Amino acid sequence: MKAAGGSGESVVIVGSVALDTVATPFGRAESVLGGSATYAALAASFFSPVRLVAVVGEDFPEAHLEALRSRGVDLSGVEIAAGATFRWEGYYEFDLNQAHTVSTELNVFERFRPKLPPAYRDTPYVFLANIDPELQLSVCSQVHAPRLTICDTMNYWIANKRPALLEMLRRAEIVLMNDAEARQLCETPNLVMAARQVLAMGPRAVIIKKGEHGALLFTPEGHFSAPSYPLERVRDPTGAGDTFAGALIGYLAYTNDPSEDSLRQAIVYGSVMASYNVEDFGPARLLRLTHEEIIARYREFGEIARFAAV
Amino acid sequence: MKAAGGSGESVVIVGSVALDTVATPFGRAESVLGGSATYAALAASFFSPVRLVAVVGEDFPEAHLEALRSRGVDLSGVEIAAGATFRWEGYYEFDLNQAHTVSTELNVFERFRPKLPPAYRDTPYVFLANIDPELQLSVCSQVHAPRLTICDTMNYWIANKRPALLEMLRRAEIVLMNDAEARQLCETPNLVMAARQVLAMGPRAVIIKKGEHGALLFTPEGHFSAPSYPLERVRDPTGAGDTFAGALIGYLAYTNDPSEDSLRQAIVYGSVMASYNVEDFGPARLLRLTHEEIIARYREFGEIARFAAV
Repeated sequence: MKAAGGSGESVVIVGSVALDTVATPFGRAESVLGGSATYAALAASFFSPVRLVAVVGEDFPEAHLEALRSRGVDLSGVEIAAGATFRWEGYYEFDLNQAHTVSTELNVFERFRPKLPPAYRDTPYVFLANIDPELQLSVCSQVHAPRLTICDTMNYWIANKRPALLEMLRRAEIVLMNDAEARQLCETPNLVMAARQVLAMGPRAVIIKKGEHGALLFTPEGHFSAPSYPLERVRDPTGAGDTFAGALIGYLAYTNDPSEDSLRQAIVYGSVMASYNVEDFGPARLLRLTHEEIIARYREFGEIARFAAV
Repeated sequence: MKAAGGSGESVVIVGSVALDTVATPFGRAESVLGGSATYAALAASFFSPVRLVAVVGEDFPEAHLEALRSRGVDLSGVEIAAGATFRWEGYYEFDLNQAHTVSTELNVFERFRPKLPPAYRDTPYVFLANIDPELQLSVCSQVHAPRLTICDTMNYWIANKRPALLEMLRRAEIVLMNDAEARQLCETPNLVMAARQVLAMGPRAVIIKKGEHGALLFTPEGHFSAPSYPLERVRDPTGAGDTFAGALIGYLAYTNDPSEDSLRQAIVYGSVMASYNVEDFGPARLLRLTHEEIIARYREFGEIARFAAV
């Protein structure tokens, strides 16, 4: 790992950039930098050069763009459209696993049609955050022969855009979803059977995000269970899943190694970055994170998961 | 590990022995051998000699006693009282984490006052299943200087017998509870803070059972996160937590080693045994389990949790 900008292969990240207002039992943050692509880009930037594709409105603060640039994120794919930036307002009660939405204003994000600058089109690593699977597919058709495509998805698309989602699952090497979404997509309460069914739809790996309970990897060869990290200082869980995903693809691009061992390490780095992200509001913790801290917590994950063989 | 009866130090197990009628989406079992002490005793018996303290009614089938004897369990502490055996009837829907009770008939269990035969009183390892903490304390006062006492508890006692439970926490070296119970006992949503508070109440270790999400160990020195096993063939989750606890104390008695490394291995053995137990109705799977299967799945847990260090 290297300083901001990373040193691996490049990663394209496509998703939302937003202004978030969030209240939790531990405080409140007003109009902070948010959105799935933001968290993913910041997390990935610790491992590899990141190229961002998103749309913001004319009201988007220059300071937020500067925050992304400070992490070496290439913003030439960020369109500044007439109108207001996507805004989300929500709160969490003591069950921090459950976000309650107060308001969602899609604004310019409603007409988001991802357009990759020519310089992005040979990017070998592609992360598609949980936008409309039709938009995810349009990104796939703009990238020339990517080495690895990871897509995230969510309950809304499973229910409302199933054909496009299934097509996307045929195009992606790795699919991310949470446990409820996997059960919903496959209509089975059994997570293992759901994961097997998703694998049969095309991807070579399915990663199930379980929030505070860790993450599971399913491949045709086997399983990996990443440890759950004992979070003591959760202040704002917003963006944890996107941070996980960004670190995942960032690390895979950094190693440029598609093996299962590399994927397991990438999942632990994803968990490490997500565990830091929730320690402060918005992406504040990511913006002051150091490589030394990342390595230290990765080692802590190793200690937490350690037990003797027989 | 050795054949039935184990080869370690002896373990006293105190709790319920019941007749269970259970329906799940995968079938139904009528009046099968059940109860917390049953599952714990059967699981522990793979590691160490087990001494059971429980009460059954005159209707209790000889075949069930024989099943326990076949695993080498010492039944001299099992009282056969006038009346009917404790009966529980329940069902699970597709969410197998949630048991729905149809009926509970305490019968002879209502007046259960654990009495240890003189030969049991020097037993070095003691497991107190989730009975009334006043009864747990009465067992403590009957055992001479045990080396290790583990107690389980549940939401009912936290709400209704708090002073006795707190006294019990001062007497136990290791406390087991599930995540909701830890949050309830300490009135905090944060599991890490809850665990810290429980440690401050007396025990040297707290183990949080999270069902399909694995188990967490908290000690003053650190944390351990046991991997969640990808269950493909769950048919009946009844007794999983008690099986976990029984294997835990059985393994600790087998090694007679109080170190954290030994405790971590014991937790993995607990997870292994619970993962087998849920594969069939009642304790049927435990009753046909082999040591080779236990070792094989322990190794599988190692493979599931493996990731490279940095």
